[in-house]
Amino acid sequence: MNSTIETILKRRSLRVFADESITEKEKALIIRCAMRAPTAGNMMLYSILEVADQKKKERLAVTCDDQPFIAKAPLVLIFLADMQRWYDYYDHSRVEEFCGENGLEYPRPAEADLLLASCDALIAAQNAVIAAESLGIGSCYIGDIMENYEIHRDMFDLPSLVFPVTMLCFGHYRQVPDAPSVIPRFAEKAIHFTDRYQRFSNEELGEIFENRYAIQFAAEKYLQNATNIGQHFYLKKTGSDFFKEMRRSVGVAVANWCGRSGE
Amino acid sequence: MNSTIETILKRRSLRVFADESITEKEKALIIRCAMRAPTAGNMMLYSILEVADQKKKERLAVTCDDQPFIAKAPLVLIFLADMQRWYDYYDHSRVEEFCGENGLEYPRPAEADLLLASCDALIAAQNAVIAAESLGIGSCYIGDIMENYEIHRDMFDLPSLVFPVTMLCFGHYRQVPDAPSVIPRFAEKAIHFTDRYQRFSNEELGEIFENRYAIQFAAEKYLQNATNIGQHFYLKKTGSDFFKEMRRSVGVAVANWCGRSGE
Repeated sequence: MNSTIETILKRRSLRVFADESITEKEKALIIRCAMRAPTAGNMMLYSILEVADQKKKERLAVTCDDQPFIAKAPLVLIFLADMQRWYDYYDHSRVEEFCGENGLEYPRPAEADLLLASCDALIAAQNAVIAAESLGIGSCYIGDIMENYEIHRDMFDLPSLVFPVTMLCFGHYRQVPDAPSVIPRFAEKAIHFTDRYQRFSNEELGEIFENRYAIQFAAEKYLQNATNIGQHFYLKKTGSDFFKEMRRSVGVAVANWCGRSGE
Repeated sequence: MNSTIETILKRRSLRVFADESITEKEKALIIRCAMRAPTAGNMMLYSILEVADQKKKERLAVTCDDQPFIAKAPLVLIFLADMQRWYDYYDHSRVEEFCGENGLEYPRPAEADLLLASCDALIAAQNAVIAAESLGIGSCYIGDIMENYEIHRDMFDLPSLVFPVTMLCFGHYRQVPDAPSVIPRFAEKAIHFTDRYQRFSNEELGEIFENRYAIQFAAEKYLQNATNIGQHFYLKKTGSDFFKEMRRSVGVAVANWCGRSGE
């Protein structure tokens, strides 16, 4: 097993960082690796917004589902799905006028553009994660950056064709764990299919989920009045306040992106 | 510079593969690395669909914007944004009934869920890419899997909460290039901002885009009757038939995912 694969397999999210800054050289290497990521049609439909201002980090620690460790991260990068650079260049290049003269449509970007740009942003983000990990710098994804769209838009001057699809906090490990305990995942048969998508019977679903969570729920209780693991996770995740806010926020952002709102 | 960073920096998309299969051991390692990727709330909102059936590969070579090399790839993996497994488990766990009894909402997944699941899928995909690269196995992303949603849905039995957000073709290099020529990217100042999103003046846009494409357009002509680089790329990319199809296809898939269509 080579060192790259070892790095990938041992990596887990880090939320407590050493009291040690990330050097300019380390940061430059992380950004350089992100920017070498493959990108749709080599268009680079993303930008990387570094949050250096401590006040902004502290605000993000609140707006991203109240996670105080965000404010303590030595390096915070927001990965933006970004079609704005290209559409600004199209404006500069008089593309709309050109389309009019040549009988071509010039439609507003749609959901597909947002998804494609999000692909670019995430692929770049994961390059940054692995590069950092190989330097002894841990990281944690903050999907909650998709919440509170209007606040983040105003904080960072985001135009309508820019959407903050993920955020990464980076910092050095306090000490390299001797035997890192990786987090359990679903069994491969639940994730990896061949030639057809596989839906599972109730019995199989029970086995897949309960096998995975058996250890956890030997120690933890279900939330509130949930009576099983499914209800527990619905309350904790999909049915939680932060998920509700994410749906609202993304709804506004998508409407804005697609030009369906007045903002 | 460590070997992981070297692997990331030298990687470029590979579309011509050696006549050599990917072993079961190699494939298992690639999948294992994908499955170690960080995932939102550790929910694993993705699945990996391996396309082994040669007839299906050949069909994908047509439906994904006519790219014949897809049919020749020794390993083809579709990364699915997937909330179906969890919602099937919620059904099994009588979550809707539980919500009704407890005065809680049980909304249908929305655009945010699709984006969050897409994040998971892409992060896992890039782990697979880097793991493969470290084994001497090249790869190419096929974003065109987002086109022709209905055809792919039927080919692979995808339920409504499953969306094929990206595809990867893998194969060994025919020979390891001595000095791999990496593809130019935008300058860092065009991509990496601090604390605020930066929009560029017309002059800056011209510089950013024209610097990047100067070499290419010393040799190539603009498409059709385009008169500048912006119009050329609009015709080639954002205004092309495949982009139009992607917008249509994703529109149908999003409506389906959010339960807004009758299908």
